[in-house]
Amino acid sequence: MNLATRCLLELPSWLEPFVADWQEPLETAEQRMALAIALSGENSSRKTGGPFGAIVVNADSELLGAGVNMVTKLGVSLAHAEMMALSMAQSAQKDWNLSAAGQVQLVTSCEPCAMCFGAVPWSGVTSLVCGARRDDAEACGFDEGDKPKNWQSKLEDRGIATQVDVLREDAVTVLQHYVHSNGKIYNP
Amino acid sequence: MNLATRCLLELPSWLEPFVADWQEPLETAEQRMALAIALSGENSSRKTGGPFGAIVVNADSELLGAGVNMVTKLGVSLAHAEMMALSMAQSAQKDWNLSAAGQVQLVTSCEPCAMCFGAVPWSGVTSLVCGARRDDAEACGFDEGDKPKNWQSKLEDRGIATQVDVLREDAVTVLQHYVHSNGKIYNP
Repeated sequence: MNLATRCLLELPSWLEPFVADWQEPLETAEQRMALAIALSGENSSRKTGGPFGAIVVNADSELLGAGVNMVTKLGVSLAHAEMMALSMAQSAQKDWNLSAAGQVQLVTSCEPCAMCFGAVPWSGVTSLVCGARRDDAEACGFDEGDKPKNWQSKLEDRGIATQVDVLREDAVTVLQHYVHSNGKIYNP
Repeated sequence: MNLATRCLLELPSWLEPFVADWQEPLETAEQRMALAIALSGENSSRKTGGPFGAIVVNADSELLGAGVNMVTKLGVSLAHAEMMALSMAQSAQKDWNLSAAGQVQLVTSCEPCAMCFGAVPWSGVTSLVCGARRDDAEACGFDEGDKPKNWQSKLEDRGIATQVDVLREDAVTVLQHYVHSNGKIYNP
């Protein structure tokens, strides 16, 4: 028996300095999305994972966490950008409940897949902002899973505000560039 | 800025010796479920997390991974039993695709929540076995999230066989014992 008892989720080494160099404010949904999309593009061009990025920001526009898709790099299927960003924010806060200290927003370059949709309420985030749509991702060959069709109202019912299509075209450009560069579309 | 770049998912220290001492075979669904439920009960009685356990087993009845709910202990909301078991199996195999070497089964003491349901196809597991039902967990106060009502057929459509109600009563007993012992029901 060779049981693992630890699994390390670790961001690529380029990410922390990249974010530290980001000079733009994170006040509006568009400003926040610009960083999430920049992370998705950087992850793609550096070949550290799929073309997806996400950030977690509080009501004071402070960045609490950032993530990119690391599935193939880490060899862990849960390592989507949203899961990484939420987990990093929780690690920094040492609390699974990100809303313990007020309003917290998850901003993701692409609408969450079925897993990440399910993960959103458990994290305590109070709002969600998305760039590309599910259809955009699926048009590029990505599988978004079996999410309820009325996923936005399901989140709203839980008090989690949602906003979609924020800088959608920019987000889609990154997805398309990844595919045209022969980026790996992994599926079991 | 205090950005975390690492998040360690780590099983409780009692788990590895507990599993090593488990002498029963893991050939049938019931035998496998007995271990998943035992892990859920042990996690509850040792107060290392919620009353949920899961294992990953291959076609040769070898244990590839095991997990328990570690949300409050780790401070990470994705740390459900199924996510831990899948991630540990992937860490041991150094591959996100657990079906790369053949049929692989996820056995969980309770029907997966919306997040874990969404995570199942991404892991490559080829079948899923559940103990307690969603209704059992919700009757104890747990929130199972917004999973499609036809979740089993959604998995079957992807070639993932499902089996439910395996040792259901035993699994429910652990859930009820946790609640009667004033176990924490966390919710954001």
